[in-house]
Amino acid sequence: METRLSPDTNGQSLVQSAIAAVTDYIRINQLKAGDMFPGEAHFAEELGVSRAVMREAFGALAALRIIDVANGRKPKVGAMDGSVIALSLDHAINTRQVSVPEIWDVRRTIELRTAALAAARRTEAEAAEIVRHAKAMMAHRGEMELVTKHDIALHTAIARASHNALFLHIVSSFGPMMEVAVPTAWSTRITPEQREAILHAHLTIAHAIAAGDPGAATAAMSAHFDESIGHVLENMADTASED
Amino acid sequence: METRLSPDTNGQSLVQSAIAAVTDYIRINQLKAGDMFPGEAHFAEELGVSRAVMREAFGALAALRIIDVANGRKPKVGAMDGSVIALSLDHAINTRQVSVPEIWDVRRTIELRTAALAAARRTEAEAAEIVRHAKAMMAHRGEMELVTKHDIALHTAIARASHNALFLHIVSSFGPMMEVAVPTAWSTRITPEQREAILHAHLTIAHAIAAGDPGAATAAMSAHFDESIGHVLENMADTASED
Repeated sequence: METRLSPDTNGQSLVQSAIAAVTDYIRINQLKAGDMFPGEAHFAEELGVSRAVMREAFGALAALRIIDVANGRKPKVGAMDGSVIALSLDHAINTRQVSVPEIWDVRRTIELRTAALAAARRTEAEAAEIVRHAKAMMAHRGEMELVTKHDIALHTAIARASHNALFLHIVSSFGPMMEVAVPTAWSTRITPEQREAILHAHLTIAHAIAAGDPGAATAAMSAHFDESIGHVLENMADTASED
Repeated sequence: METRLSPDTNGQSLVQSAIAAVTDYIRINQLKAGDMFPGEAHFAEELGVSRAVMREAFGALAALRIIDVANGRKPKVGAMDGSVIALSLDHAINTRQVSVPEIWDVRRTIELRTAALAAARRTEAEAAEIVRHAKAMMAHRGEMELVTKHDIALHTAIARASHNALFLHIVSSFGPMMEVAVPTAWSTRITPEQREAILHAHLTIAHAIAAGDPGAATAAMSAHFDESIGHVLENMADTASED
């Protein structure tokens, strides 16, 4: 494989070429997340471009979490964490490019699968954590902030227990949206009886996963989306991106 | 809502604050994809930051496709197109943060749903396009480049016919990966009989969607992933990110 560390300018800008050179460098050297690599000065010299061009390239790569240059430290290879997808989603919602019901369909589709995979693959520790979050939601039912925190943590823990890193990143990317949607729906739309049903739905999902029953876990997650999330969706549709 | 167009520096860098100010501006003014908005100079003055800081912020926003500043034109609000997720995926594969089988499970999960939604929601024109791509794959079975092109276009057309913009973006983001994976698998692993089976699988999916039968469409897509994609997966696992 050719290490094409020189920018070509046919159609691509210098910054675009510099970005491609850095991603090539990561791939060719088989670097992993957290590995150190050379700074702007090194690449500027190698590529024969200005420091300003490399600074822009590094900025773009940092925005995409492909590199991590936090706190002015030496650059490292970035770890995927769902934040890039979350930013894209946030922008897409704000600019009416996707609607909240559309996102909820994607979430439902993915989380039916993570529930099934978690039931099949979860460790004992993961099962205990999932049940703990469901019980914490019940115990703190009067404190919206804690309910929301454990609700998000429960869905994320299920995705982690699916032992599929991409599912985990996608589900994590829904967190910021849930931080807004869950408390809003609970405070304005949901009756005390509905709250109890939602709390029990989460416990049913957790127990099915702990029991290692993929069919029951899928059914419980499906019921949760059918019966509970409708309130969230209804609420967000008003304030967000329904046409 | 407060228009907080001044950078705060407690924990956030000036560039981070500038990025947040631009996304706030888009949200507060309810801008849509393609809308024009002020340039770097305007924001630099408003925020009391240097042009260099705003240039970095705009670069990061452009990398995330939140703004579009192509060809030095006036900036516009960016349109989501799957390329950001594709870049993240590419980085995650290269750095062994996600494995190819993990991505294939996500793809399968999502495309079972897009097949069902497309069967329920596709227009006549969309149905015709989907069938056309399946038939083009058959007609050009000897020309790998054309088979790959129509294969990707078929899966994308199904996602478009789901009438869910987020599913479309996610499926589109798999395109660059398929451009590499499909020809590699076909050229090295797949027998002539297997090729015929794969071509027929695509036609079966297309016909089920055209017939408006979500159950048959889901079953056909499932069979396609079970029987055909295994070859792609097996092949990519060697060259990519299997542990």
